[in-house]
Amino acid sequence: MQSFMALAALFEQRFNKRHFPAVPKELYDAAQYILQIGGKRVRPVCVLMGNELFNDIDEDAYHVAAAIELFHNFSLIHDDIMDKAPLRRGLATVHTRYGDSSALLAGDVMLVEAYEHINKIKPAHLQRIVQLFNKTAREVCEGQQLDMNFETRDAVSLYEYVEMITLKTSVLLAGSLQMGAVLGGAGLGNQQHLYEFGKNLGIAFQVQDDYLDAFGDPEKFGKQVGGDILSNKKTFLLIHTLDVANAEQRKELSALMNTNAEDKVAKVLQLFRDCKADLWADQLKEKYLGIAMQHLEDTAVLSARKEELINLAHYLFQRQS
Amino acid sequence: MQSFMALAALFEQRFNKRHFPAVPKELYDAAQYILQIGGKRVRPVCVLMGNELFNDIDEDAYHVAAAIELFHNFSLIHDDIMDKAPLRRGLATVHTRYGDSSALLAGDVMLVEAYEHINKIKPAHLQRIVQLFNKTAREVCEGQQLDMNFETRDAVSLYEYVEMITLKTSVLLAGSLQMGAVLGGAGLGNQQHLYEFGKNLGIAFQVQDDYLDAFGDPEKFGKQVGGDILSNKKTFLLIHTLDVANAEQRKELSALMNTNAEDKVAKVLQLFRDCKADLWADQLKEKYLGIAMQHLEDTAVLSARKEELINLAHYLFQRQS
Repeated sequence: MQSFMALAALFEQRFNKRHFPAVPKELYDAAQYILQIGGKRVRPVCVLMGNELFNDIDEDAYHVAAAIELFHNFSLIHDDIMDKAPLRRGLATVHTRYGDSSALLAGDVMLVEAYEHINKIKPAHLQRIVQLFNKTAREVCEGQQLDMNFETRDAVSLYEYVEMITLKTSVLLAGSLQMGAVLGGAGLGNQQHLYEFGKNLGIAFQVQDDYLDAFGDPEKFGKQVGGDILSNKKTFLLIHTLDVANAEQRKELSALMNTNAEDKVAKVLQLFRDCKADLWADQLKEKYLGIAMQHLEDTAVLSARKEELINLAHYLFQRQS
Repeated sequence: MQSFMALAALFEQRFNKRHFPAVPKELYDAAQYILQIGGKRVRPVCVLMGNELFNDIDEDAYHVAAAIELFHNFSLIHDDIMDKAPLRRGLATVHTRYGDSSALLAGDVMLVEAYEHINKIKPAHLQRIVQLFNKTAREVCEGQQLDMNFETRDAVSLYEYVEMITLKTSVLLAGSLQMGAVLGGAGLGNQQHLYEFGKNLGIAFQVQDDYLDAFGDPEKFGKQVGGDILSNKKTFLLIHTLDVANAEQRKELSALMNTNAEDKVAKVLQLFRDCKADLWADQLKEKYLGIAMQHLEDTAVLSARKEELINLAHYLFQRQS
C-alpha cells in the first residue's frame, strides 16, 4: 500500500495534461482552466487506495479516479455559478473568468468527459461502476439543493445538516473508496465498510471545517476566520448553539444575525463558547472519526494494508494540529 | 416498420411517468416539469426507427430512447438559462419557474439520469452506445458554444453556420438513428448511412426553420414571424443575403440591423427577396434533403422497411405545406 503522496503523484502524472480539444476555445479553455488550478486530488487518490487495499492497482482504477476528479470539478464549476463565488483556491472562478454561460457548458462537457473515462474500464465492472457513480452524482446534486434551501430557512436541525453534508461532500469520498474496492474485487461487506469509513470521515472533516472557520488560527487555516458567522451560515456550531442556548442567549444570537456590527464575529464566538459549542464540536468530530475507524477496523483485510488509509485520515485532520 | 405516431405512442407509454424521487422537491419538480410539458419526441422515436430498420425493436432501444429524450431536455434547460429565454413550448421555462440554480441542478441530474437509462442495456452494446452518446453530447455542447460566439461576431460564413447547426441540433438526430441501428445489429456502413441521413435531414430542417421564421404563415408557424430578424440572428437567409448583396444593399441591411424601426422586418424581408435568398434557401433545403435521401437509399435493407423513415422526413417538413 502506497502513501497518499505517492499515489497523488502517480495520479497527477496521468491526469496532468490537456483533457479537451482546442476548439471551441471559449468552452474548452474554461474546462481546462479549473483542472490546472489544482487541488489536493483527495478523491481520486481514494479510488486508488480503495483499490490497493484489496489488490495491486488496476489500470481501471486510474480511469475511475480521473472520472471522479472530473466529476468533482464539474460540481465545483456549477456550485460556484450558483453561489456567485468570485474565488476558488485563491484564483478567479471559472464563471468569473469565462462568463456564466461558458462555465455552465464547461461543467456539462466535464461531466460527459467523466463518463468517457469510466467507459474505458473492462466490461466486467462497467455496469456496477456506472451505477455507483450515478448514485453518487445524484446525491451530490441533492446535497447542493439542500444547502441552497437551508440558506433561506430560519432553522435547520442537526439531523438535517448532517444529511446535507453527507450528500454534498461525504458520499463522493465514500463512493470513491467503494469504486476502488469494487475494481479490487472486494466483496459487498468490505465495500460497505469502506464506504462508511469514507462517509463518516467526510462528516468529521466538515465538523472540523466549521470549527476552524470560527476558532482556527488564521495563518494555518488559510482563509478568513469568521466567514461563516458573517454570512449567517447554518454550521454545526450555530445549529448546536441555537439548540442549547437559553432564551436570553438565543435572543442575542438572533439579534446578532440580523446585524453586520463590527464586533459581530467576536460576540457570536463568545456565545458559541458560553454554550460550549467548541467542546461539543470536538466531541462530535471524534464521534464520527471513531465510527469511521471502526468501519476500517471491520474491513476484512490484513491490518498492515490499512495503514495508509489511517495516514489519510491523519492527513485530512492535520490542519488542526 | 411502425409509423412515427405508433412509435411515439409506444415510447410515451413508458416514458410518461415520474422520473425522479419526491425530495428535494425544488430539484426534482424542476426536472420533472420540463418532461411533462411535452414535445414531439422526435429523437427517441429516431432511436426506435433506427432499431426497427434492422430488427424487431429491442427492449434496449427503449432505454436508449429514454436517455436521448432526457439528454435533449437537459440541453433545453441549460440552453434556456444561457439564452435567458422566458418561454418554451408556450410555457414558462424551468429557470423562470424554479430559479436559475434549481434549473441548473435539474439539468445536471437529468444528464446523470440519461446515463442511468443507458446503463440498463445489455453489456454487449454498452461501451459502444456510451461512446456514441458521449460524442454526441460533447458536440451538442460545442454547437451551443459556437451559437453563443456567433451572437457577438460581425460576420459568420455559411460554412461556419452549417457546422454550428450540425453540432447543435443535427448530430442528436443522427446519433439517435445510429444508436438504434447499433442495437439492431447494423454493420458500420449502414450505421454511417443512417447517421448521414439524420444529419442532413437535420440541416434541411434548420434551413426550413429559418425560412419559416421570415416567410412563414404566422398561423401555421406557431411563433412570431420575423423574430430572427428583430434579434439580428445570423440565419441562413441573413448570411446568404450578406454574401450576395451589392454594396448599397449591404449598407442598407447593416443600417437596418442597427435599428429597431417599426418597418425593420418588412424592409429586411424585401432585401431577402431582392437578393433571392428565399429561392436560394428552398434550393438549399432540397439539396440537404437530397443528400439525406441518397444515404437512406444507400442503406442496405429492403426498400419496404425504409418507408416510415421517408414518412418521418415528410412529417418533419409538413409544416411548410
